[in-house]
Order: sequence, then structure tokens, then C-alpha cells
Amino acid sequence: MQFTQGLHRAVQQQPNAIAVACRDRRRTFRELHDRVARLAGGLRGLGIARGTRVCILSLNSDRYLESYLALAWLGAVVNPANFRWSAPEVIYSLNDSDSVALIVDDQFAAMIEPIKAGTPGLKQVIFAGDGAVPAGTVGYEALIDGSQPVADVGAGGDELFGVFYTGGTTGKPKGVMLSHRNVLSSGLDVLAEGALPEGVIGLHAAPMFHLADMMLTIGLLLRGGRHIVLPVFRPDLLLDVIEAEQVTDLLLVPAMLQAFVDFPASKARNLGSVRRIMYGASPASEALLDRTQALLPQVSLMQVYGMTEMSAVMTALPPADHVTRTANRLRSGGRASYHVQVRIVDEHDVEKPRGEVGEIIAKGPNVMIGYLNKPEATAEALKNGWMHTGDMGYMDDAGYVFIVDRLKDMIISGGENIYSVEVENAASKHPAVAAVAVIGIPDAAMGETVHAAVVLKPGASLTQDELYAHCKQHIAGYKCPRSLEIREALPVSGAGKVLKTELRKPFWEGRDRGVG
Amino acid sequence: MQFTQGLHRAVQQQPNAIAVACRDRRRTFRELHDRVARLAGGLRGLGIARGTRVCILSLNSDRYLESYLALAWLGAVVNPANFRWSAPEVIYSLNDSDSVALIVDDQFAAMIEPIKAGTPGLKQVIFAGDGAVPAGTVGYEALIDGSQPVADVGAGGDELFGVFYTGGTTGKPKGVMLSHRNVLSSGLDVLAEGALPEGVIGLHAAPMFHLADMMLTIGLLLRGGRHIVLPVFRPDLLLDVIEAEQVTDLLLVPAMLQAFVDFPASKARNLGSVRRIMYGASPASEALLDRTQALLPQVSLMQVYGMTEMSAVMTALPPADHVTRTANRLRSGGRASYHVQVRIVDEHDVEKPRGEVGEIIAKGPNVMIGYLNKPEATAEALKNGWMHTGDMGYMDDAGYVFIVDRLKDMIISGGENIYSVEVENAASKHPAVAAVAVIGIPDAAMGETVHAAVVLKPGASLTQDELYAHCKQHIAGYKCPRSLEIREALPVSGAGKVLKTELRKPFWEGRDRGVG
Repeated sequence: MQFTQGLHRAVQQQPNAIAVACRDRRRTFRELHDRVARLAGGLRGLGIARGTRVCILSLNSDRYLESYLALAWLGAVVNPANFRWSAPEVIYSLNDSDSVALIVDDQFAAMIEPIKAGTPGLKQVIFAGDGAVPAGTVGYEALIDGSQPVADVGAGGDELFGVFYTGGTTGKPKGVMLSHRNVLSSGLDVLAEGALPEGVIGLHAAPMFHLADMMLTIGLLLRGGRHIVLPVFRPDLLLDVIEAEQVTDLLLVPAMLQAFVDFPASKARNLGSVRRIMYGASPASEALLDRTQALLPQVSLMQVYGMTEMSAVMTALPPADHVTRTANRLRSGGRASYHVQVRIVDEHDVEKPRGEVGEIIAKGPNVMIGYLNKPEATAEALKNGWMHTGDMGYMDDAGYVFIVDRLKDMIISGGENIYSVEVENAASKHPAVAAVAVIGIPDAAMGETVHAAVVLKPGASLTQDELYAHCKQHIAGYKCPRSLEIREALPVSGAGKVLKTELRKPFWEGRDRGVG
Repeated sequence: MQFTQGLHRAVQQQPNAIAVACRDRRRTFRELHDRVARLAGGLRGLGIARGTRVCILSLNSDRYLESYLALAWLGAVVNPANFRWSAPEVIYSLNDSDSVALIVDDQFAAMIEPIKAGTPGLKQVIFAGDGAVPAGTVGYEALIDGSQPVADVGAGGDELFGVFYTGGTTGKPKGVMLSHRNVLSSGLDVLAEGALPEGVIGLHAAPMFHLADMMLTIGLLLRGGRHIVLPVFRPDLLLDVIEAEQVTDLLLVPAMLQAFVDFPASKARNLGSVRRIMYGASPASEALLDRTQALLPQVSLMQVYGMTEMSAVMTALPPADHVTRTANRLRSGGRASYHVQVRIVDEHDVEKPRGEVGEIIAKGPNVMIGYLNKPEATAEALKNGWMHTGDMGYMDDAGYVFIVDRLKDMIISGGENIYSVEVENAASKHPAVAAVAVIGIPDAAMGETVHAAVVLKPGASLTQDELYAHCKQHIAGYKCPRSLEIREALPVSGAGKVLKTELRKPFWEGRDRGVG
């Protein structure tokens, strides 16, 4: 399969249907096809060919979708930059991936010069914004207008589709190499799960650089659905676009779902067009799901658990489980989806009995080619032909996978394994706590002790003793926080995950934690 | 992906659910898994290893399913023999594929000795029947009982899964080499089309050796559904098993659908459990579909068009099109399914305008590796990386593909192209005609002329002049039959396709038709 095939199929079957809408721009599949073919022609004229790496640094837009398509059309390789990155981080990805061109929008125009200065290999900058085209860059619309369409080279299968930098939560970014087959197998699987059915109008609200949203991109392309693009996530803008475009399907990270559901104005709006919400990238609480169903009783919910290295999809918790709520399944990541095999294993890759915690490993057509320029990390991750996720979890008798912690976030205190997520669940029940992250900090006697970073609810207060006493009601004493820091906010990644590496940094400076 | 992964997934998620029922045997997924692991152990003891080719010659049974699974478990390669073949045809496939073992049931026990005599490379015969185990063969159940389970070797991806002989309608059989990826990509696609949903109880009524039924096998395995196995297709047996097992999903060739729907007893039975019918392998008439909906108003219908070389799935006509019946879409094979790209091209592979007839070509992860031992035929079929189906058709403005004829069945008379299917459609409207096949026969002046082979309805009669006059009302005179033969029956392949090669043989003996 090839990334562009959904576009070819859609233009064959429904050329005059609206393919994409963003801001005041709307294009049919025929128009999208034509623009992509000409953009590809223009990019080829700038020296971009099969295998060439190109970075995109942009907020969500229809041009982001076109750029993905045009690069795949040429067999070029995309490096979608996290738009929360600083210039040095973007520069790192450009140099590491040998990117020779950068597609950038207005929002990041100020970063062009610093990036150019730090990236000797960068040959071309294409400005995909709406403002005046900066000096030394090629205007995106002028490039399309001035170029002839070229034929799709037919890149696909095991060919490299993109390099997706990950690892914000665990240190130095790693470039995950994904083939066309990788991302399309997950996309087809999502359709097999019943997501994004015929007639879907899907909203890109999560960042398009992130692989979670890539599943929406590919799923919509394969199904021939409509892409609605929200440049920046903000609850009020989300409400406007849902109503205006009659959006049927949302893909959100829990932090976005929460912002949407708890936004006061949401209740007053007509959200009846929304039929399905996919969420993932981090767990959602049952309370949040309850509030979601209260606001949107007609909506069916599906959770997807995965990671960039698995092309985003590993397990799925289907809508039925959100309705029946059997046992504690809502707290699981679901069961192995159709295209993958999932196991829980010990450190020797031997399968653990059901209910026992081990590392989650998986195998399937969606498993990455490897980490770019990191043969050792690749060999370690893909040991015995299975992706070693670094997530610790257990599986129940019906195959539901419960993630208890990141292997690297697990705290070892006095020889005991403490799963930070379990402590966080206990701490978050305290009425003063708005958000909490738990980490291990160095301790001469115990190795590590449990430390909590807490964001308080407005006007609330909390002491270490109060937090400890509260947690003690829910979990064993050795798991309860021994120290507390009150923060304005927790540092989060582009995908909404708490960056525990950042929280640990002041405590571990100059020390080796062993597990990163 | 690997063929066995659906079994692993099902045993992980629902070990105690019924996996398969056949005759008086019922097994859970755990039992099926255990039997397959021990059968694989037994087969390994008989010398069957990764890459070894093994033939299965059997009616449908649970053991057929187990054999498919155990061979894939070992990384062995299956050669499922058409059970309508004569011994020489089975021998041809065994020798051509280098099969060293044969799994055979009671029905074909009499063929064992002739097959052995004609196949010097055959080392082992496993008797998977219920009767007494013939001398010189290994008993299937004893093999399972006496063997230790072995681990799945993890064969998958581009590894060879099976050699499927095809070409009954066009001469010498060709061994189509299909990888695990090939068959599983079509299986996953079928789920993406919405077929075989959660809770499915699917019936193997079509022959399990045929790749059409393989889609049911893989679809059910991936979804974790129940396999009900009907050893032999007969309408009365079909009705019994639907009622007894509460079958939800059927996959039938149109000849079977017709036999089922027109069977007088069908109306008196409780068929309310049936929710979906997939049909394909050859076109179904609108009248037959009407009768199907009259008998089973609750059923949704889906057509799949494909061929062995495409792992059975190329286009799909979804249930919605059977309800809306827009334009003449019921007469099409549907539109490109999600995993494939489909085009209509001229003899230089240049895409034809919509509505114009050309060869149907396709590309996708389901396209065969090639024809075994036939590099020239492979190169011709896979020219420019696309599968050249040999089917002539056109595409409408919404991407629906209408098959007008096999390239090889097209008649060229006085320089005009005549599509046999068009003539058959006209002829079949005559009240005396029960079935009709139209072929080209040699003619000194015209090259070929149109000849009709007709099966009459009981008590009816038909003359050549009557048939010509009738057809003339529907199609141009040069397309109307110039000669007529009345037959008791038409020769058909295992998949229910009329064997035009057989019909042409007496006319073309000793001559070269050019197109086979």
C-alpha cells in the first residue's frame, strides 16, 4: 500500500466531494489531487526526489495534508517537526534526518533564520503561510501555481515514509523510521475496528505532526472521508468548527477531551453531528468519560493505545466496552487490535501468567523499521523480532491490557517496585489536587523515594502530611509520597504526556538513574 | 501478519468460546489451539518443516481448518487441491508444487494409490477422514494424540503461505503463489468493509480449498468469530446447519445462493439468524438478489469481485448499494476496496477514459508473488508492477467497475469485439432459457462467429431462429448467436464459473485461437 492511494481512490470514486476544509478554504478531491500533483512537480523542481528528507514545521492546515501527500507522491521522506520544539530541537531533527528542505508556516517564520544557521544541509525553505513570503523562501501557493503536475512515482510498501521524532518523555529524541506499509497497516486496522465509517467528516484537532493524528489522516484518506482542519486547539474554536462543518468524528488526546467537555459553553452548543470520539496517547479517567457521555449521549467512544514505534495502534478498547463497562476494562488500553500480536513478558521475553506485570511487547506490520542512526537502540527495541514498548502492564483473562507504568517511570524504593501511575491515581482523588505526577528521586538509604509534583485546584492548599495521609487510605505506605512540590503546571509533551524527565532533572543532575 | 495470528489472538481474548463446529464435533479456541500445536508437532515428526509443500485433498471439515493452521504454524506451504479434480490433475499440482505430503479424507481415499503412483516425491499421506485408516497412511487423530505441541515458528509477511492452482476456465492450471501478507491484507480489508463483525458465526459452505472461502477463514480468525463447517453444499443441509448453529454470515457463490433461495423448503424454515451474505466469484442477477431479499428481508448483501491472483478481493459492492440500487450498480463488481488500486487500461497500460472498455489492472499488498515455475506468465501478469487480470471492463464516474468479459472470452467477429456476457444477458431473457454460455467458434470468413450453448427450462424448446430473433430485440445483429447447441448442463469450475474452455474445445481442436 502507499500513502497516496486513498487520494487516488477518492478522486476515482467521488471527485467532486469536499476533501478538505481549513479556515476559508475548501477543496474537492479533484482539486486536492490536482494541487498535490502540482506541488509535487514544484518540489521536484527544487531538487526533492525519491528518498529526499523534508521537514514540515507548521500548525495544522490543509497545506500540511497536501505536503504529506506531495512528499509521498515523490517518494520523499517526511520529518514532521513537533511545533512545540525550540529551534535547537528542530535543528537536531533536521541534521539527524539529513533534511534538505523545510516547509514552514507563518507561526514559525521567526525560526527560519536560526534554523538555517544551524543546518548546513538545508537547501530550500518553502513558506506555506498566509502572510508575505519571507526573503530567501519559496512561496507555497506560487510554487503550486507555477508548476506542472507530475505523476505519482508509486512509492509504497517497505519504502521509508517518514521519520517521526519521539522520546520527549524519556530524554534524547529518537527518529522513528516508518514505512508506508507501517502506517497504512494501522490505518486499515482502524477501519477494521469500525472507526471512521462511510460519510465520515473528521476533525484534525490534535497536532498533525503527531502519529496519533496520522491515523485520522490515513483512515480518512482510505475511507474517502472529509478532512476538517483546526489550526490550533482551543475549546471555543473546536465548538465553532464542529457546528459549522457538522463534524462526525473526533480524535483527541484526553487533555483535549477534558478541555472540550469541561468548557462551560459546550453545553449550549449543538453538537449532534458528532457520532464518534477516538481518544488515546494517554489514559482517560472514568469520570472524564462519564462527563463526555453526559455532554454527548449519542457519541460512541473508542480508545486506542499505541506508540510512534507501533505506528500509533497496538490495542483498542471498542465502543461496546464503553457501554457495558464490564469489570474495570475502562481502565485498560483494550485488547490487541486485528493487525498485531501483543504479549506481556519478563526480562527474558518469556510470557508472564495472566494478571502479572511485565513488559508489553508486540509484533505486526505496523512495527517501525527502526530508529534512524541508532542501530543499538533499534536492536534493543526489536529484540527477537518483537517491539519492546518499554511499557509495563498486565493482561486479564480476556486479553485486555492494563498499563501500569512506563518501565522508566517505575520507582524502585527499598527493593520494591512502585508504579507511579498507581500512586498518581490515589493522589488525584484528593479534592485539592487538579493534576499530579509522581517520580522517583534519589535517596541514599532507599535508592529512590516517591516524590509528588502537584498542581492545586484554584484556592486549594495541600501539605505533604495531608497528601501522605490521604494516599495511605488507598495504597500501601511504602508507595505514598515522601515529598511534595506544588507547581503552577506540569510540563507536557506535544501529545499531552507529562514530561517526567523534566520533573526528574533537578533531582538527578549529575547522577545515573540506570533506566534513563 | 501471519496466518495463525487470529488464532493466537482469539485464544488470548476468548479461550473458552466455541471456535469451530463440524458434524458432531465442537471445539473451543483453547482446544483448537492445542490441537493445532500438536498436529504441527506431529507433522514436524513426519519431516514437514518451514517451506515444505503439503497438499490437502478433502471436503470441507474442521480438520481442513486445523491443517491450514498447523501448516502455517510450521511455516510449511499449503497446496489445497480442488476436490473436483481428477487424479491426474491432483498429481499435476503435487508434482508442480513439489508437495511431499498429502492430507486426504474418506471421500478421496480411493485416489490415494493412483496419486502415490504418479507422484514420486510424495513421502507421507495423512488420513484425515472418519473411517478406518488405510494402509500406508498416518491417521490424523492418532497423529494429534501421539504428538507433543510445538511452538509457532512465526512464519509470516512475505513468506510463501500457499500455492493455489487456478486457470480451470482458461486451460492449463497455474500455481498462484500467495504470501501470508497477501491473504491477510485481503482478510483485514474485508473487516474494514464491515464484513464479519464481532459475534459473527460464519458458515463455510463454499469449498475451503478455494480462495473465496479463505477470506471467510481469515476474516473469522482475525475477528475471533465462530467457524461452522458444512462438509458438502446441499440446500437442505445448509438449512439444517443455519438453524442448528444460528449462523449469522454466509459466503456463497451465486450458484449456491440460487440453489439456496430457490429451494422450496427454504421458505418454511427459521432463517432469522442470518444477517449478512457475501457473494462473489461470478456475477449474480438482479432477479436472484430480489428473491434473496424476499426470502431474507433482514439480510444485508455484499458482493466481492476478485481472483486468486489478487487474494480474492479487488472490488466490493457494499450493502448500501444493494439498498439504494443507484443506477445499474448492482450489475457492477463494486468499487476498489480499501487496500487496492484499480485502473482500466489499454494494451499499453494507459488509463482509459471513464466508460470505455479496457483491461482491469490492480495493485496492492494482495497481489500474488507470482505463478510457480512460470516466470514468463508471471512477468506478463505483473507487467509494470500491476496485476493484469485478463478481465475486460469499464469504470463509471463513481469508480464502479463493470466487468464485460474475460479478455479470453471476448469474441472477435469480422473485426468487431463482442463481449460474450452481453450476448448471454440478452439470451438469458428468453423464457425458454435456464442457463446460457456464449463462445466464439472458428469461421473462415469472419474469424469467429457467435455460438450459444443453452440449457433449457423443463419442458421448454428453442430453435436457433427463435433465439436469434429474441436477441435481436436487445442487441445488435452482429452480436446475436449464429449457432445453438442445447445441453443438459454447462460445465462449471469448483467456484461455479462456466468452463468456456471446455465448451470451445470441440470447435477449436487443433487450431490456435491466439488468446487461449
